[in-house]
Amino acid sequence: MSDPEFKHVAIIGIGLLGSSIAHAVAAYGGAEQVSMWDLSDDVRARAARVVPGTVCETAQEAVAGADCVILCTPVGVLREVTGQLAGALAEGAILTDVGSVKAKAAADMASTCPAHVHLIPGHPIAGTEKSGPEAGFASLFQDTWHILTPTADTSAEYKSAVERLTAFWIRIGAKVETMDPNRHDRVLAITSHLPHLIAYNIVSTAYDMESVEQGEVVKYSAGGFRDFTRIAASDPTMWRDVFLTNKEAVLETLGRFSEDLAALQRAIRWGDGDMLMREFSRARGIRKAIIDAGLDTAEADFGRRQIDPDQDE
Amino acid sequence: MSDPEFKHVAIIGIGLLGSSIAHAVAAYGGAEQVSMWDLSDDVRARAARVVPGTVCETAQEAVAGADCVILCTPVGVLREVTGQLAGALAEGAILTDVGSVKAKAAADMASTCPAHVHLIPGHPIAGTEKSGPEAGFASLFQDTWHILTPTADTSAEYKSAVERLTAFWIRIGAKVETMDPNRHDRVLAITSHLPHLIAYNIVSTAYDMESVEQGEVVKYSAGGFRDFTRIAASDPTMWRDVFLTNKEAVLETLGRFSEDLAALQRAIRWGDGDMLMREFSRARGIRKAIIDAGLDTAEADFGRRQIDPDQDE
Repeated sequence: MSDPEFKHVAIIGIGLLGSSIAHAVAAYGGAEQVSMWDLSDDVRARAARVVPGTVCETAQEAVAGADCVILCTPVGVLREVTGQLAGALAEGAILTDVGSVKAKAAADMASTCPAHVHLIPGHPIAGTEKSGPEAGFASLFQDTWHILTPTADTSAEYKSAVERLTAFWIRIGAKVETMDPNRHDRVLAITSHLPHLIAYNIVSTAYDMESVEQGEVVKYSAGGFRDFTRIAASDPTMWRDVFLTNKEAVLETLGRFSEDLAALQRAIRWGDGDMLMREFSRARGIRKAIIDAGLDTAEADFGRRQIDPDQDE
Repeated sequence: MSDPEFKHVAIIGIGLLGSSIAHAVAAYGGAEQVSMWDLSDDVRARAARVVPGTVCETAQEAVAGADCVILCTPVGVLREVTGQLAGALAEGAILTDVGSVKAKAAADMASTCPAHVHLIPGHPIAGTEKSGPEAGFASLFQDTWHILTPTADTSAEYKSAVERLTAFWIRIGAKVETMDPNRHDRVLAITSHLPHLIAYNIVSTAYDMESVEQGEVVKYSAGGFRDFTRIAASDPTMWRDVFLTNKEAVLETLGRFSEDLAALQRAIRWGDGDMLMREFSRARGIRKAIIDAGLDTAEADFGRRQIDPDQDE
């Protein structure tokens, strides 16, 4: 194993992503030492039992001496957390995050980040619907994209810091891409934020339908609905902050979605089967591109559950 | 193995479901003989290579002498197909289907079904996004629900026919439930039809967004979008017919969905984080009910792909 990129990585926020980073460092390297902190007493106590590394009593203690600090909090508190840590951050340290929104997150962190720290916002396109320190695991980032949105800093020191952070994420399994933060937010609005909003919404609609007992919605959920409930089980606080901080791109994308849905609704009402065929058929093109790019090995599964091997063909 | 429920099962339409029934009978029993037919010369030729049973040259030939005929065509052609077969159906035979819409399908089949045949409409809540005879496999129906919507016929012969068909589906792995066809269509509108419409629509919206290159939509699809493309890869003809034949229930459900989505949109625009938290949090309740009922063993997977075992923890 080559030398680790960092002497000491500090993780602030020990949820799914924070604990997965700690597990990944323990498994694949990248830092000699990992310290961590979470706002919740309960989460800190649970993390001390299941996450490799040192759980500290204060955030300042966790980041003291760290050459890389990774904020794994909801994006809504990045500004406040950065401000609270500012006095404790080491000279030349890297400050990064894992927030799903980058323009607002970068601006928030920049507003309270001291000048002697290299701010490099980031976003791993990785996760599961689980939350909390117990949900973390070492291979979460294997073969996933990690997007960095570096600032306008053109110094050699900053460039070298970006290279070190890139090497760290590659070591724990990710493929790294740099991108403009506004572009990131537009791309993610359609590939991640809108899908989650839609999933939350359809589950809400089902919840309220008095003509269908909840028991039946659950019982026959395998027809497609179940996959939406899986996405809608994601952490509510995290997603509230995503929608509030990427408001413009989400509203723009949602507007287009609603227009398109109104056109499908009209086609159904007026029995326009040709229009439905046209729209449904071209969805297969994007699906094929995803398969061809090797980006999905899973299969859809409407009703079929995991089968006992001896029952299988 | 106990005696098979049928001497001769005929399958009309050799797609994912038709070929899976043939595979399931070969694996688990239920009929001494299976014959099948498809409108497409190409599908018949492919089925002859990969599906167990006899592929016939005409539909009439396939159903001749069969004591159970299963229509596995899109629901839009059930009326026509039933009419074409009417003269060839044996006295006392069971006629059933696998259509995702039941009220209209039942009425269509009833209008052309001869009186000497027992019509028992049905719908397996099972499937994958794959189509065609090559997509079929024996365990597709294991542990899935099969819904039968029997007619008002109260004769002992009809009751016995329903019992035989129930035993057949149980033998090939399903759990069987009977239900009123209108109720079926309302329940499935929210648990299956709307989720598919939404999935098709979001893929369409992404396709048209000129501000995002398709390459990037594909590349970063792991953030949630990918799961929708999987659902939207389902057979376009089948789904066109579902929306056209379950129009009222789909439009009613879609209307509620759009209202709810407008409320979320307004909350995002006005920064109402409390409302978003409230809506997002209750989605977890339905998810928990599905998990508690043992109805989903799969995990969400945003970015994480199947990992080589030796890379895993």
